[in-house]
Order: sequence, then C-alpha cells, then structure tokens
Amino acid sequence: MPHTPGPADRAGLRRANLDLLVRMLRERGQVSRAQLAVHSGLSKATVSSLVGDLARRGVVRPAGITAGGQGRPGELVELRPAAACGVGLDLQVDHVGATVVDLTGEVLLRRRIACDVPSSGHERVLDLLADVLTGVLDDVRARGGWVVGATAAVPGLVDTDGAVVRFASRLRWREVALRDGLAARTGLALDFFGADNDANLAAVAEHDAGAAAGLDDFVHLAGGHGVGAGVFSRGELVRGHLGYAGEVGHMMLDPLGPWCSCGRRGCWETQVGLGALLHACATPDDPVHDPALDPDARMVLVRARAETGDRRTLDALHQIGAALGAGAAVLVNLLNPAAVVLGGYFAALPEWLVEPVRSEVAARVLAEGAGGATVVASRLGFRGPSTGGAVHALRRVLDEPAVVPVDEHAENTANVPEGMVAP
Amino acid sequence: MPHTPGPADRAGLRRANLDLLVRMLRERGQVSRAQLAVHSGLSKATVSSLVGDLARRGVVRPAGITAGGQGRPGELVELRPAAACGVGLDLQVDHVGATVVDLTGEVLLRRRIACDVPSSGHERVLDLLADVLTGVLDDVRARGGWVVGATAAVPGLVDTDGAVVRFASRLRWREVALRDGLAARTGLALDFFGADNDANLAAVAEHDAGAAAGLDDFVHLAGGHGVGAGVFSRGELVRGHLGYAGEVGHMMLDPLGPWCSCGRRGCWETQVGLGALLHACATPDDPVHDPALDPDARMVLVRARAETGDRRTLDALHQIGAALGAGAAVLVNLLNPAAVVLGGYFAALPEWLVEPVRSEVAARVLAEGAGGATVVASRLGFRGPSTGGAVHALRRVLDEPAVVPVDEHAENTANVPEGMVAP
Repeated sequence: MPHTPGPADRAGLRRANLDLLVRMLRERGQVSRAQLAVHSGLSKATVSSLVGDLARRGVVRPAGITAGGQGRPGELVELRPAAACGVGLDLQVDHVGATVVDLTGEVLLRRRIACDVPSSGHERVLDLLADVLTGVLDDVRARGGWVVGATAAVPGLVDTDGAVVRFASRLRWREVALRDGLAARTGLALDFFGADNDANLAAVAEHDAGAAAGLDDFVHLAGGHGVGAGVFSRGELVRGHLGYAGEVGHMMLDPLGPWCSCGRRGCWETQVGLGALLHACATPDDPVHDPALDPDARMVLVRARAETGDRRTLDALHQIGAALGAGAAVLVNLLNPAAVVLGGYFAALPEWLVEPVRSEVAARVLAEGAGGATVVASRLGFRGPSTGGAVHALRRVLDEPAVVPVDEHAENTANVPEGMVAP
Repeated sequence: MPHTPGPADRAGLRRANLDLLVRMLRERGQVSRAQLAVHSGLSKATVSSLVGDLARRGVVRPAGITAGGQGRPGELVELRPAAACGVGLDLQVDHVGATVVDLTGEVLLRRRIACDVPSSGHERVLDLLADVLTGVLDDVRARGGWVVGATAAVPGLVDTDGAVVRFASRLRWREVALRDGLAARTGLALDFFGADNDANLAAVAEHDAGAAAGLDDFVHLAGGHGVGAGVFSRGELVRGHLGYAGEVGHMMLDPLGPWCSCGRRGCWETQVGLGALLHACATPDDPVHDPALDPDARMVLVRARAETGDRRTLDALHQIGAALGAGAAVLVNLLNPAAVVLGGYFAALPEWLVEPVRSEVAARVLAEGAGGATVVASRLGFRGPSTGGAVHALRRVLDEPAVVPVDEHAENTANVPEGMVAP
C-alpha cells in the first residue's frame, strides 16, 4: 500500500533560510543585506524580511554603513552575540555540568560539579543540575545575555521529544522524567528543556563548528566507559524510528570476546571502552583507576605515560586502536561517511589512535580508499556532548525565532535599520 | 569553521507536492481536484497547477464527473497507467533481465536471459542488456505506453550519478562505463539511464509499495551470494559520502570466522550468504549446487527439503537464522529502524528465518523491545532490485515532469479538463 506523506513544509524553507543567514553572519561578521542576498542566492526582499525577523528579536543589530565599494552605501548588520545563548547540560557518571554557547558559536562559560551520579539517585542529581542551571542563567543575565533553552546530554536512550530518559545503564537511570523534573525545580517552561543522547549531541557540536563542519555524512564516535555513535546523513542526525540510533557500544564483534556489563559477550565497548584501556594499561592498584580523578586528569596521566614510551601503555593503545579501527570499518562499510571523528577519550590520544584506525579502516573497507572516509580526532573531546547540547538549544532560535522575545531587547529594536519591520 | 549550505530548494517543494499528488492518485484511483486539495492540504490553486502540469504530459487524464455529493460537480482525473513506465535492468551473476513498472505501480512485464556474466566480459553483457531493453521498449510501445528511463541494479559499487560501475567483484567488473555503453548501443540519451546498487534499489521497491511502504526508517537486507543492505532514514536512502553505503556483507563479525572471497576473515556474508546456506545444507555433489539452476529454482529445492523436515537443511537454516539475527542486531543497535526487511534469498524461506532473526535481534539490541523494530520478509525477494530500478526510473516523472514529452500524447492533451493549462 503506497504511503501518503504530508504536504511539503513551507515553514521548513523559512527555517532553512534563517539558518543560512545566521551562519553567514557567524562566518562573515558585519554584512549588508545586499551582500547577504548575493552570497545566499536569496532575493533582497526575502533577505530583508528574514533580517527584520531576526532584528525584532534582538538576534542581529545595526553595525554601521558599508565603507567604499560600488553602488549606494548599505547598512551593515551583525549578530548580537549574547542576544541568545544555549545551555548544554552535562550528565555523566562522575559529574554534572553546563556549557553556554552564544549565537556566534563562542563558548561563554562552563561549569562542572563532581557527583557520583549512579549512587545519588536521580532526584538528588536533578536538584544539582537545576542548581547548576540556575547559576548559569544568572551569570548570563549579568552579562546582558539571554538563554533560549537548555538541552541535556544523556549517556543513554532518550525518548524522541527529549522529555524522558528511558534507560541509561551507567547512571542507573530508567524512565526518569528529566524535563518535568528540571521545569518543576527551576520554574522554567517545559519547552525550555530538551535532551538527547550524548553521542548525538557530540556529533551536533562537530557538525556545527568542529571537525565535521560542512560534512553532510559523517560518524562521530564518543569514547567513554561506554561507546556511542552520532551519525549524520545528508546533513542531519540519523535518529532512527524511536530516536535510539547510535548504540554501537553493544555491537557484537567477537563471539568469543569478553563479557560485557550488558550481560552479552563480545560487545565493542568491552574492546575499546575506557575500561578496556585502563585495564590494559595499568594494574588494578594503579592511580590511573582512582575514581576521584576527573576524566581529563585521567587522560593527562595516560598521555604522559605514552609520551614517555611506557611499554604497557603503548601496547594498550595499540590494542585499542586496532579494535577501534575494526569496529569503525563496520560503520564505514555500512554508512560510507566522509569522516570518522574520534571523540570522548579517543580525542585525548590522537597520536596513538588516529593512524591505527585509519589503517584498519583502509584495510577492511570494501570501497577503494575507504570510500573517501578520513579519520580525524575531535577538538572537543569530553566537552563535545555539552557543547552540542548548547548548540541544540540555540537552534531553537533558528527553528522558531519567536522563542526570543521582542520586548527584552528594547535598546536594540529601537535601532532597527531601514527595511526591517518593527515589532 | 561553520558551513554555508546552499539556499533552500524551492523546486524540491514542487517535486514533493507532485509526488504527493501522484501517490494520492495511485491510492485513490479517480479523484477530483477539490478532493486532492482537501486530502493533500495544498491549496486548490496549487493542485490545479500541478494537475495541469501532469495532464500536459499525459500522466493524468480526465475520468468523468463526480457522482452526487455536495457542492458543484467536479471533474475527476486519474493516472494514465502506461503513460509513463520505468524499466529496471537486472544484472546478476547468472542472468540479465528487465522489469517494467507503470505509474500505478503495477508490474507490466518481466524479461530474463540466462548469461554467465563474470565469464562473458562486460562488452558482451552490455550487448545483451541493450537487446533486452530494446525488446522491452518495443513491447511497451506496442501497448501504447512510454518508457521514461531505465535504471540498472548492480551488485556492487556504483558512482553517485549512476554512470559507472566502480567495482562489482562477483561480476568481475571494475570501472565499467555502464551508462555510456548502453546509450551508445541503444541510441537513447545518456540521461535515460541510471544505475544504483542492487540492495539500494531493492529497498526503494520495498519503500514504494512493499513491506516497508510508509516507513521512514528501515533496513532491507538482500541475501544472495553477497549480502547488501539498503538503509532508509527519514524517508530517504542513506547513500553516504560517495554513494557506497550499505556494504554490510563485509562487516567483520567474527575475528576467527571463515575466510571470505574478499581476502579477509569473518565477514558476515561468509556466515549468511547463499554460499554459506548451500554449503551447510548439502554435500558438494548435491544437485542444489548445479550452476544451471536459476535462483528461484534453487530456492524451490531448499524449501522442499525444509518442508519435508530434512535435518541437514533445517540445521543449516537454524545456523543462518542465528547469524543473520546477530548481524541484523548490529544494524538495529546502530540505526534503530522500524523494520528489518529480509529480501533476496532470505525472502524465499521466511518460515525458517524470520522468527530466529526476530529473537536474536530482541536479545541483542540494547533498546527495549528491539527499539520497536519488526522483522518481516520481503514479498519481492529476488525481484526486488529490478522492481526498485523501475520505480527509480519512474521517479524521474515526479522529479522532472518535463521528461515526459507533451506531443506524444496528443490524444490525451486534447481532453485536458477545465483548469488545466494547455501546453
């Protein structure tokens, strides 16, 4: 029985064009509407209407007159950086935190509070997370900024609309109403909050301004205690039917492999998860296992040993690199990405992991030259998920410009340049 | 560095709406423009313009007046089935063939010629394929139909624009200029021809009117000597960076597994390819291996043995089902599809394969209830790729209505109903 899709989405077109203009403003700084029209391929009338929309919401502001050039002088506009900020909430085994990103893509601030999340119970963790968020909102407000939303990066399965954490084994969370919990604690509206899988959000951050900027098809692999993938196809996240795509940590790649915490054998994360690295590179009493170490500090330790040529550490990294490459090759054969981005803890050890993954992928992928796939390290590493959360929250400005209120930026809308519609 | 996408595509909107109308006409038969407007959510003016476009090209035709109902009577339109047909060209190890599908999705005819493709050399095979196509075009013309294009289903890697077969190991083809070769032999225009990977096209057929109709996210697994996947995400094929996505046959799922024809060990197709089934279910001198058997006849033999309870055959199917499920679970963990469709030879043995795959997937997928993924058998089986090729070729009518010429259907455009624009 043939399928009848809904009518094509005109609002989507406007959103795409708003997105285009904001991206151009992010790249170019101060630009006239005429220049925006030329470089976007949109008509001047469309550009004026879209810029007017952004101006009314304080997202862009006047920036003087074009200097020199041909034709009559044009009024420049630029992004008002703090006009809209997004918050990414970090929710990991050993800490909660927040990252604030402004409209230009700059990270304004980061916060982190150590917390034994699995032992604390989710009510206590939500209290902490709400405290972190409230503090961050105050900080942003003190800088004259405005936060449009907050998206939590969750190491587990989140439902499609980001309201409920279905299952996050490492946090020991099951069916936690994250959105309701945060809204109730902060007094903010439900639609202020979003949530997504941390590997998805790390991929969003890479796509926005990281190692995968400009790539329509790529895979981001997030190495932590678990291993997750964020997959982009045709410029968008592959979420799957119910939003659970990207669970690569439990791909069975060796029927006789070690037992996994999930109760099965040979899962990929038993080979390449942080536990596998630490187990291989250090005896059980080694300080690298100290649960009080934060993830960055632990990687500093491992790096230092690798740099000084510690045999056991180098052997461990060799082993991880080979297994990471073997699994990455499965994904490359299936998805033919332009890049495999190594994030999370992998990104802290690029000198020892990128090349082995590259050569395993080249050897194991059927298409010549690995089907054009490069292997690169993320520059965000552990900060990827919360950065991506902030970018995700910020996208609401583009998706629904009405979320940025008009009246809060009176000082700005008073100076709406010619051609922009007053509120 | 942020990425600047091109301006959003307005032509895409018109294409999507044309697609919508043709799908509605396929489902509903005879419909008035007012009904199309109501059910599509498009304005009457837009529907009139689109229907006019289709009428000028003979894709729709008048179909009388609405009987009864409220308001003033409306003129009905319906698809003119043979107005536009698509041809799918089949290119397999042991035969070449063609399938013709008309606008309503009906299969008009199928042709098949036995041919030892790997031994024949590609020039000879292209001769045969051109002969098959020419015969089919004559047949369709004799029925008053018109063929808009032909898309070849290739068991291998095809470049993004469908012009060149990069590598098809089982055909022993490398860098074969398929499009140029067929155009030169038939005198047809280059853009008459397309080509895609056979697993991709089988998925297109399932999505159009098969087991995955209406599903935005699914995986089609094509079992043959090789195993390929066609992946749909958000209603479209996942092609990857250079169009090589879906090469799941060489996923390494067992480091100690058997050697594969690709020179590596433990590839999935050594476990679940047709070769693995035949090897497991019959001694080397068994007639089931006879190279003269066509694929359907071979499956009839295997089925007959399974139905009569032949122990060796049932054991072989049990083994294939388990390995198929284990690999399918990798894909389900990664992609969270709504369905896994078993095509190719798997579709010939659903009673013995569907349930084992379902239970392996349920046991191995992290998300509860297999993340909502069902496991179903294709109804197309070996006919999937060429049917999908025909559907693909036919889509050119929707993507570029101008490919259907106006003048060939003078008898039709003479009767353009009121409101339709004359050419």
